[in-house]
Amino acid sequence: MKDTSVKPVAVLGLGSMGSALARAFAAAGHPTTVWNRTAAKTGPLVAAGAHAADSVAEAVAAGPLVVTCLTGFDETRAALEPAGSALVGKDLVTLNSGAPIGARETATWAVGHGARFLAGSVKDVPDAIGGPETHLCYSGDREVFDEHVRTLRVLGGDTVHLGDEPDLAAFYEMAVGGLMLPALLGFFQGAAAIQSRGYTAAGIVPHAEKGLDMIKAGLPGFADQIDRRDYREPSSTIDLFRTLEQAEHDLGQESGVDVTWQKPIWDRLRQASDQGYGDQEISAVTEILRGPPNQGTQ
Amino acid sequence: MKDTSVKPVAVLGLGSMGSALARAFAAAGHPTTVWNRTAAKTGPLVAAGAHAADSVAEAVAAGPLVVTCLTGFDETRAALEPAGSALVGKDLVTLNSGAPIGARETATWAVGHGARFLAGSVKDVPDAIGGPETHLCYSGDREVFDEHVRTLRVLGGDTVHLGDEPDLAAFYEMAVGGLMLPALLGFFQGAAAIQSRGYTAAGIVPHAEKGLDMIKAGLPGFADQIDRRDYREPSSTIDLFRTLEQAEHDLGQESGVDVTWQKPIWDRLRQASDQGYGDQEISAVTEILRGPPNQGTQ
Ligand SMILES: NC(=O)c1ccc[n+]([C@@H]2O[C@H](COP(=O)([O-])OP(=O)(O)OC[C@H]3O[C@@H](n4cnc5c(N)ncnc54)[C@H](OP(=O)(O)O)[C@@H]3O)[C@@H](O)[C@H]2O)c1
Ligand SMILES: NC(=O)c1ccc[n+]([C@@H]2O[C@H](COP(=O)([O-])OP(=O)(O)OC[C@H]3O[C@@H](n4cnc5c(N)ncnc54)[C@H](OP(=O)(O)O)[C@@H]3O)[C@@H](O)[C@H]2O)c1
Repeated sequence: MKDTSVKPVAVLGLGSMGSALARAFAAAGHPTTVWNRTAAKTGPLVAAGAHAADSVAEAVAAGPLVVTCLTGFDETRAALEPAGSALVGKDLVTLNSGAPIGARETATWAVGHGARFLAGSVKDVPDAIGGPETHLCYSGDREVFDEHVRTLRVLGGDTVHLGDEPDLAAFYEMAVGGLMLPALLGFFQGAAAIQSRGYTAAGIVPHAEKGLDMIKAGLPGFADQIDRRDYREPSSTIDLFRTLEQAEHDLGQESGVDVTWQKPIWDRLRQASDQGYGDQEISAVTEILRGPPNQGTQ
Repeated sequence: MKDTSVKPVAVLGLGSMGSALARAFAAAGHPTTVWNRTAAKTGPLVAAGAHAADSVAEAVAAGPLVVTCLTGFDETRAALEPAGSALVGKDLVTLNSGAPIGARETATWAVGHGARFLAGSVKDVPDAIGGPETHLCYSGDREVFDEHVRTLRVLGGDTVHLGDEPDLAAFYEMAVGGLMLPALLGFFQGAAAIQSRGYTAAGIVPHAEKGLDMIKAGLPGFADQIDRRDYREPSSTIDLFRTLEQAEHDLGQESGVDVTWQKPIWDRLRQASDQGYGDQEISAVTEILRGPPNQGTQ
């Protein structure tokens, strides 16, 4: 029986993430062909056993599976365009971040070029690639996923297919991505504030970890309220959170730390209160974020 | 040997949190005296075995330990003022949120009224009060903490004294509190976006949980960079995060969800990039948040 787990793979785009992907494939024994716009970046991969293609077309021709990891979908299509007919019959798997619309456009583009398409997203840092718990989501052509799942699982043990629509992985990634940066800035703000008092940022880490655990514990309940659009059994009301606005302002004043980036957040809470959600759960702010198109549909 | 763990306690302020505190003391067998501005709220506590005082002065007189849980520090001093000389010799422990300055003002005020002062903060929801892992931080008079620690631990097993300065607990709470609301709004935004696509908010919960775990895993490293003020060994650069701004904008457009509350965040990232931090770790945004007073001190 042929070992189907070591099929050849082409990896296009060797930034921090793409290099980690290519390295994982090569380490797992897959014949790995690499290509990068800036050719110099192929060096370390060649040292790790990969073959460097001179052109996109040559890379694409190397095997059935083409994995890309460029900055975004526009860049991916632009880089692949010169491959032309070499794409016919290939399975294209993208692993960049980007808006759902970019995934849909790329799906249409790929099919138009005779390829099958799967859009993936990596939910971790490059160092985690290859780990048994590293999470990658895919959406799009289910057959492509099924045929290559053993190969794709080389990148992370927690590899799942979300559905047939090519933009689903992007939707999920964006849906979750929207909390990363705000949470990080909140931590950085706290770190700067505590340093202004002469203490170390390291000292607030255990407290921030507890805070993140609290949020985590709250998510299933919030999601349930949001799905039912019923926020009337609050554990922490919007008005309770609103009492903290002045305290945060005061903290900014005395620490010299910029807390004004949170102003639109307080504004949304005030709007929610104005619309009668003040004594309801904090998750009711979702109704404000839905924006005009969905307002009044409840 | 007298059991010192069941000393009498007065609890002032019976909102969601204050009621949970009073209930925990009463359940643990402490003679518990309660007072609330709106007297009707004492009912359930009296049913649970507490004694309702008719005035603040009467509540304060009930024992050595006075625990308050009002909205903020200003409200706490205003409510206690009528107690006047009844405060002499008492140990006042506040358990509200608020800015560090409010804790310092209240410490001065309490000492001026002949009381000792400890400022605490609860890092959990009312339902968690009394749990073995529930976390409460105190700062201020160490003797007060030591004398009452067995009583205070009734409220949560993870009860710690951070230091002698009365504003420290508030500083730590605010430092961590600054990430809660932004992270929550990020989740609500994602929930609204995924619903606009016909999927449930519940479906993104496991993904958001992974995202929170990723943030958690990153905090010690970020704190270390912030303490060293050296961001030159990045795993995710500011410029990499910046590539997501357009995708988030596009997501807002196609889902009808308001993502504009994140605009100041993207602005801070651009500023960081303009100041030369683009190819450094995302934690370098801390240097932007420090604001003018600390700029150029590196
Ligand atoms: N790094 C992470 O922590 C992480 C985590 C999860 C997801 N991701 C996602 O993974 C993707 C790649 O991230 P990365 O960290 O590897 O980024 P990166 O280090 O900045 O690399 C970007 C790659 O895209 C290529 N590229 C950009 N524009 C191009 C164009 N017009 N034509 C050809 N090639 C082009 C670059 O080629 P050159 O070398 O020639 O510039 C480089 O190979 C992004 O979508 C990112 O959001 C990254
Ligand atoms: N609930 C939570 O999840 C939570 C978690 C951590 C920390 N905390 C903190 O705990 C504190 C209390 O929160 P909570 O949820 O219990 O709030 P709450 O349910 O809104 O209760 C507020 C309490 O303060 C009293 N009060 C307000 N202004 C007053 C004044 N001028 N004079 C006398 N009494 C006054 C209210 O009396 P009336 O009944 O007469 O209005 C009520 O007893 C806040 O600082 C909050 O940030 C709460």
